[in-house]
Parts: sequence; structure tokens; C-alpha cells
Amino acid sequence: MSISLRIEQALDQHFSRVETDGAPPRLLAAMRHAVFPGGARIRPQLCLAVATACADDAPALSNAAAIAMELLHCASLVHDDMPCFDNADLRRGQITVHKQFGEPLALLTGDALIILAYQALAHAGTRWPQRLAPLLQIVCDGTGAPDGIVAGQAWECEPKVALSQYQRAKTGALFVACTGAGAVAAGADPQPWRRLGECLGEAYQVADDIRDVMGQSLATGKPQGQDAHHGRPSSAADLGLLGAFGYFRELMQAAVDSVPACPARGMMQTLVRAESERLLPQRAREQITRGVAETGLA
Amino acid sequence: MSISLRIEQALDQHFSRVETDGAPPRLLAAMRHAVFPGGARIRPQLCLAVATACADDAPALSNAAAIAMELLHCASLVHDDMPCFDNADLRRGQITVHKQFGEPLALLTGDALIILAYQALAHAGTRWPQRLAPLLQIVCDGTGAPDGIVAGQAWECEPKVALSQYQRAKTGALFVACTGAGAVAAGADPQPWRRLGECLGEAYQVADDIRDVMGQSLATGKPQGQDAHHGRPSSAADLGLLGAFGYFRELMQAAVDSVPACPARGMMQTLVRAESERLLPQRAREQITRGVAETGLA
Repeated sequence: MSISLRIEQALDQHFSRVETDGAPPRLLAAMRHAVFPGGARIRPQLCLAVATACADDAPALSNAAAIAMELLHCASLVHDDMPCFDNADLRRGQITVHKQFGEPLALLTGDALIILAYQALAHAGTRWPQRLAPLLQIVCDGTGAPDGIVAGQAWECEPKVALSQYQRAKTGALFVACTGAGAVAAGADPQPWRRLGECLGEAYQVADDIRDVMGQSLATGKPQGQDAHHGRPSSAADLGLLGAFGYFRELMQAAVDSVPACPARGMMQTLVRAESERLLPQRAREQITRGVAETGLA
Repeated sequence: MSISLRIEQALDQHFSRVETDGAPPRLLAAMRHAVFPGGARIRPQLCLAVATACADDAPALSNAAAIAMELLHCASLVHDDMPCFDNADLRRGQITVHKQFGEPLALLTGDALIILAYQALAHAGTRWPQRLAPLLQIVCDGTGAPDGIVAGQAWECEPKVALSQYQRAKTGALFVACTGAGAVAAGADPQPWRRLGECLGEAYQVADDIRDVMGQSLATGKPQGQDAHHGRPSSAADLGLLGAFGYFRELMQAAVDSVPACPARGMMQTLVRAESERLLPQRAREQITRGVAETGLA
């Protein structure tokens, strides 16, 4: 089974556990709307790739870790799209949850998805009790205070913020948690996988900043120019587009180099290189170079 | 040490774990604002009372369970107070989180408090791995879909809702989780304690409905008449004030009777009777009787 199919099946199966007659139907519909169809599912893919590299002897637990990561990511998107933040109309090419179901239900949908993530861990954790506490800790570290994604988003509400601290929390924390959770679910030490998560997380944020400026509204399914519009810190604004692109390539190379020695090292490195091309294809660099030549701006 | 002091200390200690220099200071301030000073802390008190009745052999774990319940309750209050729900100015006698810190930070504060609850379980669960998965499951059941408090709140967004289903999820679910979590944290079977949580949860909601109609704004620290204003289901509206009061007393008696046989049965029953008087004092019944005599309405 492909990793993609494995993720979709695990998500669907977990949803079916809470889709009972006793639940409010519109809440269930809004929760599904927020999660299906997915984007690239990069976070659960990363989690399962690391679990696989660590022999994946408890696939039900690594599935739970992977979908927990995706559900927490989706929860953050639902809340970030709400009027008090981005007030976005579109997400992943479809109408956002609050536009479709109203603000009250969007607020609750985010909350319910956070809890649904922990329900996945609780369900699978019964069979591997020794792994549950460290797994839970890693998932919490990636999402809450002091420096998970919620804290990252909260930096936008502070009068002063350092770009690296903001990006590390806003995006990087969940990538670090994905690699760590994949390792712990497979009974391995998460520490050697940390650097991979850090590099990918930062690279992903830089790629997002670049795409936000270049405007790939159709490709990303969300509106462009949001960072400047909301006055958010952005590496594309700080380094210029060419500088940001160079930094992105450096980070992806560091990610490739960071993969620890294991039988699956080559496979992991190939995956990271493919992800680099998917995130910012060669043609994007050509577009940037052309733009710089035309305008004289870097 | 009194149960109250134990709860405040455990909450404060847990907060200090995430209050680092790397966290956004305003997020931390908003999280504290939402939790301190507390209300009656009835949910963590119930959790610890049950743990105590079950011999409480893992006090760090029962503390974690108790504060997880309180943090999840506080998170729900922060989100319920937001403009898309109650748009409340006051909570527990102080200004609400979104009025003090703005909507974006209130949204994130709720999210961060949910995760902080699970962080408490992760932290303490390391020492009692066999108890962690069932504990986590109980906490999730009380809060998420299909019938935890988030689902209860979501019933307000449905075109049709049965009062008992709504109340059971909106308030009852967390009380059931409190008794269950207290038992599991102490290594006991949660099932015999379920009925106590159900009765107390429903009684608490009925008392809240009655106070909402009677208007004890000063005593509860929140505005009155909110249920009618928001068109919410209410037992006071369904049964009349006297009927609702009678139903409340029945539920509290059922709670007293439900306490399972254990060395601490008498202590638990005394606690429940005291809670009954605290929730709706004798003078409230006199007020109701007087009001009915004056207006001829029941």
C-alpha cells in the first residue's frame, strides 16, 4: 500500500469512530470538510517515512501518530483562516470552513480536530503503553506552548518578533514533531531525526513565503500576498526572492545531509530531494531570475 | 493540604513548565488570565475526590488528570465567550480574554489550553504508562466528538436538538470524565463512578439554567438571561423555575445514592450534599417560591 493511501485510510477509519448518531451532524460535516480532500499530506508522510526508516514495528501506532499530526495541522488551518486572522475564502481550492459552516462551527471544528488527534493516540496507544507518554509529549511540544505551532501563530500578536523564532515555532515545530513521532512510534530514539524536521520545517516556510510573493494562487489554492497584507515576517521580504530561493536550497541540502545512518538512508534522501522539487520547482527559480533581470531588483 | 490548594499548586507548577523565554509573552499572559483566579474548580475537585476515594496511589497522575479537566473547561469558556458565541464581557468577575487580549489571541489561548491539558497527562503519564491510554481516552471522550463538551456546544449550531442530549454533552460529559479520570488515575475501574458524574453534570447544568433566569450576575460573575437571549435550550424554560428546582434536587439525591461502596462513601456523600447547597442555596428556593406566589407563574 502506498503511504498516501495508508494515510487516507487511517484518517477515514479514525473519523468513522466518532461519526455516530449521537454527534451533531453539522460538526461532523465541518470536520470532514476541514480534512478531506487533503493537500500534500506532507506532515503525515514525513512521520510515516521516518517510522518506516526505523522498521515500523507498530504500524497502527505510527498511523495514529501520522494522522494526529495531520489533524492538528488541519485544526490550525481552520482557525488561521477565520476572520480574526486571515479571513480567507479558500483553502486547498475549496471554500473555508467558516465561510461554509459559519464562525461558531469553525471555532468548534478546530477544537474538535485537536481533540480528535489525541483520540487517535489514545486509541492506538493501548497496545504500546511504554511509547505513549513520549509520543504524547512530542505531539504536544509541536503544537502548544512554549514553542509549538499555536505559539508560532501567537507571535503574530506580539509587538516584536524575531523571524527565525517565529518560523521555527509556526511551521518548524510540527515538522520536528513529525520526525520525532515517527521514530518514537517505531520504538526508536527521536533525537537523530530532529535536524531533518528542523531543516524541512524552515525550508517549507521559506518556500511558502516565496510562493506568497510570486502568487501561485491556483497552485496553492489560497490567496496570494497575504504575508505583506497582514504585515507578517517573511524571509522573501527579508532576503529578497533570489536570496530566499538560495536559502531554501541550502536548507533542503542540509535536510538531505541530516538523515541519520540507517538501511533506508538512500530512500529518505531521495524523498527529500523529490520534496524539494515539488515545493519549489526549477521553473520557479527561472521565473525569479527572469523577474530579477527585468526589474533589476533582488 | 486541602484539595483546593493542591489544585492551585498543581496548575501553577504546570504553567511554569511552559513559561519560558522562548514563548510569546502575551499568549502566556492570556493563558494565565483564563485560568487564574479560578471559579469553584468543581471539576478538578470532583476528580481528586474520586481519586482519593480510590486510595490515590499516584497523586502526581491524579493531579494531572484534575488539572487537565480544569484546563479543558477553561479553554471551552474562553472560546464560548468569544463574539461568535456569547460575546461576553465578563467571566468569573473579570474581563474576558478576547476583550482584554483581542480575538486572535483568545482563539489561540483556547487552543493552547487544550494542548496544555494533554501536556499535563504526558508529563505525569511517563511514570504510570499502563494508566495513560485509558486516562487519555476518558479525557478525550469528555471533550471531543461524538458527545464531549465541544460536541455539546456544537448542538447550538444545529437546527434541531433534544434538551437532554445537548445538556449531557455540553456539561455532563466533562463531569463523567472527571469521575472516570479520578478513578483511572488511581488505578481503579471508572465504571462504578460514571453515574455520579452524569447526575452531577446534569444537576450543574440545571442549576446554571435556573441562575441564568434568576439573574445572579454578581454571584456568578457573568451576565444573566444569556440562554433566552441566544435561544438556547434550558430546563428552566422547559420545566418552569419550581419544576427545574425540583428536578435539580432529584438529580443531587441520585448523585448521593450513586456513590459506590468504598471506605470513603460517607465522605463523598457529604461532599455532594454540600455541593448541592453551594450550587443552589436554600434561599434560592425561597426566592423562587416567593416569585411564583407573586406572579402566579410556575
